[in-house]
Amino acid sequence: MNITLAFAPGACAIAPYILLKEAGASFDTLDLNLGAGEHHKPEYLKINPKGKVPALIVDGTVITENVAIQTWIDRQFPQAGLMPSDPMQYIQALSVLGWCGSGIHPKLTQQARPERYCDDPSAAARVKALGHEGMVEQFELAEQMLAGKTWFFGERFGCADAYFYWTFRRGGAFGADLSRFANCMAHRSRVESRPSVKALLAHEEAVKARF
Amino acid sequence: MNITLAFAPGACAIAPYILLKEAGASFDTLDLNLGAGEHHKPEYLKINPKGKVPALIVDGTVITENVAIQTWIDRQFPQAGLMPSDPMQYIQALSVLGWCGSGIHPKLTQQARPERYCDDPSAAARVKALGHEGMVEQFELAEQMLAGKTWFFGERFGCADAYFYWTFRRGGAFGADLSRFANCMAHRSRVESRPSVKALLAHEEAVKARF
Repeated sequence: MNITLAFAPGACAIAPYILLKEAGASFDTLDLNLGAGEHHKPEYLKINPKGKVPALIVDGTVITENVAIQTWIDRQFPQAGLMPSDPMQYIQALSVLGWCGSGIHPKLTQQARPERYCDDPSAAARVKALGHEGMVEQFELAEQMLAGKTWFFGERFGCADAYFYWTFRRGGAFGADLSRFANCMAHRSRVESRPSVKALLAHEEAVKARF
Repeated sequence: MNITLAFAPGACAIAPYILLKEAGASFDTLDLNLGAGEHHKPEYLKINPKGKVPALIVDGTVITENVAIQTWIDRQFPQAGLMPSDPMQYIQALSVLGWCGSGIHPKLTQQARPERYCDDPSAAARVKALGHEGMVEQFELAEQMLAGKTWFFGERFGCADAYFYWTFRRGGAFGADLSRFANCMAHRSRVESRPSVKALLAHEEAVKARF
């Protein structure tokens, strides 16, 4: 089986990268330079017409959207235990994935790309400030969800941990002090101590050096 | 089993309403008046701290996020065939659900609630216009996905149809003419001819009359 992950440093494609490593999958990456607009070029739009990463290409079939990609990885590598085995916990983990994608990610984009929300440059500061406020509300919820826990679900690192890790790391890159989210900070440290995430961080650095 | 759907007319809670009806489930609704801010009141925040609909309460356990709620409905009522049985088609259907939630829905919110993106009233028109542009890009993709098809996946109506129907109906409520999206328009007509959706539309009217 040929697995290729369309990837970009810093983007939410880091979640499936981590999960493929956790699963011990053999895979290649298609590293895109978002700053150079490679995700909007015709070659890539043929793969993913949405012009976004991640996309996972499995023997020529393209899967887009993190929730679908992560579910595929979990189903393909069940021994990795990336989703809870209990049926209701599974649904709750899926809820975390949905929330990362539709509840948290848009608040990050609002801070990273204010011009997509209002292209009057004088509005950018307010657009970003409101994105920050919305993000903080989400991290307050995460702080409660992680209270007293090592991982989101039980004793096993999984999809919810990888995806939330990305949102919290990305959220911290806009200059705000997030140290009051002590549970999220501790979760981030635990995530970053895993070999899969060390491999990710090394890959991100190598790709950034090339671009 | 006690099933209650936290619902509001016009909101994306209409997708699980339709799917529960398709599945022949017996369920109650908790009808919230979003205009009166009932989703932000303490009673509701105890159920869903995110202050959003839908939420599905199953024997006291709360499930939030459309992708998780719809997956639960599919798993609980497998005879309804709400998700494809082929494994890769299943993943592709999940991708549509993820896209409706994280790719299309935010473009609708940007038009409905521009003040969440920039609270300077003079910016509202540009915020909405950019939301419209982003939405149209998504509907162009949907138009291709639905070409030559009755439903998103095969001959069976399912989760992807119910959720996309909501996005397209909601997208049409901002005054723009969407008639050039002929496949999406025809899909919407097919969806609205189903008994489950007629039941939904009647429920929405009844709730709106009460508020």
